[in-house]
Amino acid sequence: MSASTEAVTPRGGIMSAEMAEQPAVLRRILTEGAPRIREVAAAIAARNPRFVLLTARGTSDNAALYAKYLVEVLLGKPAGLTSMSTTTAYGAEPDLSDCLVVTVSQSGGSPDLVASTEAARKAGAITLSVTNNADSALAAVSEFHIDVLAGPEKALPATKTYTAELLALYLLVEGLRGGGGADAAGLPEYAEGILARQSEVAALAQRYRFAQRLVITSRGYGYPTAREAALKIMETSYIPAHPFSGADLLHGPLAMVDNVSPVIAVVPDGRGGEALQPVLERLRGRGADLMVVGQADQVAQASAGFAMPAGVPEEVQPILEILPLQLLAYEITMARGLDPDAPRALAKVTETH
Amino acid sequence: MSASTEAVTPRGGIMSAEMAEQPAVLRRILTEGAPRIREVAAAIAARNPRFVLLTARGTSDNAALYAKYLVEVLLGKPAGLTSMSTTTAYGAEPDLSDCLVVTVSQSGGSPDLVASTEAARKAGAITLSVTNNADSALAAVSEFHIDVLAGPEKALPATKTYTAELLALYLLVEGLRGGGGADAAGLPEYAEGILARQSEVAALAQRYRFAQRLVITSRGYGYPTAREAALKIMETSYIPAHPFSGADLLHGPLAMVDNVSPVIAVVPDGRGGEALQPVLERLRGRGADLMVVGQADQVAQASAGFAMPAGVPEEVQPILEILPLQLLAYEITMARGLDPDAPRALAKVTETH
Repeated sequence: MSASTEAVTPRGGIMSAEMAEQPAVLRRILTEGAPRIREVAAAIAARNPRFVLLTARGTSDNAALYAKYLVEVLLGKPAGLTSMSTTTAYGAEPDLSDCLVVTVSQSGGSPDLVASTEAARKAGAITLSVTNNADSALAAVSEFHIDVLAGPEKALPATKTYTAELLALYLLVEGLRGGGGADAAGLPEYAEGILARQSEVAALAQRYRFAQRLVITSRGYGYPTAREAALKIMETSYIPAHPFSGADLLHGPLAMVDNVSPVIAVVPDGRGGEALQPVLERLRGRGADLMVVGQADQVAQASAGFAMPAGVPEEVQPILEILPLQLLAYEITMARGLDPDAPRALAKVTETH
Repeated sequence: MSASTEAVTPRGGIMSAEMAEQPAVLRRILTEGAPRIREVAAAIAARNPRFVLLTARGTSDNAALYAKYLVEVLLGKPAGLTSMSTTTAYGAEPDLSDCLVVTVSQSGGSPDLVASTEAARKAGAITLSVTNNADSALAAVSEFHIDVLAGPEKALPATKTYTAELLALYLLVEGLRGGGGADAAGLPEYAEGILARQSEVAALAQRYRFAQRLVITSRGYGYPTAREAALKIMETSYIPAHPFSGADLLHGPLAMVDNVSPVIAVVPDGRGGEALQPVLERLRGRGADLMVVGQADQVAQASAGFAMPAGVPEEVQPILEILPLQLLAYEITMARGLDPDAPRALAKVTETH
């Protein structure tokens, strides 16, 4: 337990304590973890991969999607998310020379991730696993490994390992392009500031206590946050939460949105947020109940919201934006009289093959 | 209107008529379209792309996901779905030499698809567009173009252009690997047989008439079908429908599934269906109401279902599996007293930038 855990005085419970650890975990990655990440990145950069493939499931898949944006935008390399069943069910044997295959997993224990990473390595890929367990089977079968140093995660809904994966992947991509990752330096303090505002989120949770469904939307760097927020809300409160990229929302699912279906919009401070403006206008025009996670001026135009700190570079904003939404999932779940530490049907290591 | 339209005697309405045209459209692609697709495929294969990127939105994005499975499994090349905002919002300039970029769009008119295809071509990619409009801006900016020959689509929910895109993409991938696409020959007749069973689907629709939400799951080749079925149900009936790959469903969202949240499972006849069996067992163990689209023995183990014809090769099954689910979206919408031809908030060409 870190000092910051006590600072936000969690009401108890494992998920709550692990959310509160996040500033300390981010700080640990920036100090203890960063040198090793730079080494791994330099070794991979020397081999100059042409394409990057990312493999993951669940929460880690949302971290992988964040990394895909980083790779495309910051690194200028084409990237894809692996459809794992093509290897594990169909025995596909693509030629992966010149490919960097990054597998992201909290436990490093899912058999299908281990099998697909082994297959990728045999197919000529540079393999890197990013896990919270350096002794895992996945770390063992990968050529390179990055430990996200989040400490044991005991709650079934993943929180601190998600933000740890995001930061580790950001530092990796920065390292691949020879950058120092300086934009991440302020994150632990910003995270502390956000987590200290849990009572604001508890008030927001009252809006959604009786919601039958939620739509969560964003664009660009905010889209992985929308997906992870939806997953977190679904797996703790059981409220169906649909994540849509803003552009996809306009392609049909907007028909589902009306003034009884609340919308949460993650509005990045930057180009992603600019690209989302026409979607927000359409939603406001339809009278949607709109909660915004974004800058204060965006929150002011919405029905409700959570104002994010100004001045954070857009590419690291996702590491902060998910925090109020993790708290929201927790608070909605508590408000509904459920136990966020004991969700139905959720196992920590998913044994899919 | 084709002969088959009259054969299934649609109850009227544009969506209904266009669903009924599908066997004729598939036949047209196999006869008139296939030679041109083979030519395009041969010209692209001669340039030996290393990596395939697929770009699309909405229904066409589900067709692109199907093509991603084909590329990985049949062609043995790594593939990815483009996150379009990395180009259009963030100005990413990846090096796309050796990449084939396939853009799929019914209208060929969305400005962001045109812009991202132009950017890809400038970045060195081989560009191919697959549209239902040879005179579109997208066709004009692409080095290669394939016309899916579905005829004008007037209904807002896309049906015949989806199956046309699937078949055109299947023939493209077959052509890229030098195959003849013989597995597709029987599809028009199978499609006629399925569409003639609309009354079976109307009976199934009664189960879901009052459903507050649906979960739709599959694995492998069936997963794009699950996503497209969910989109079709959402945009016509407004029932929130969540698509999950079977493996992802076990990672948390399973907590949402109980005996009041019906599940539709698309069970491919082949390896995708085998990989889905542990998920189906978990769902049955939780007492979920389960409707199966799959072989008769799979339907027999479920609460309800639609038996698919036997003997169809797994990689072309998606072209048929979506048909009963399109009909289901239509019949649920009719049962709820709504008009599938006039969904709220849906525009045929989405003007996202």
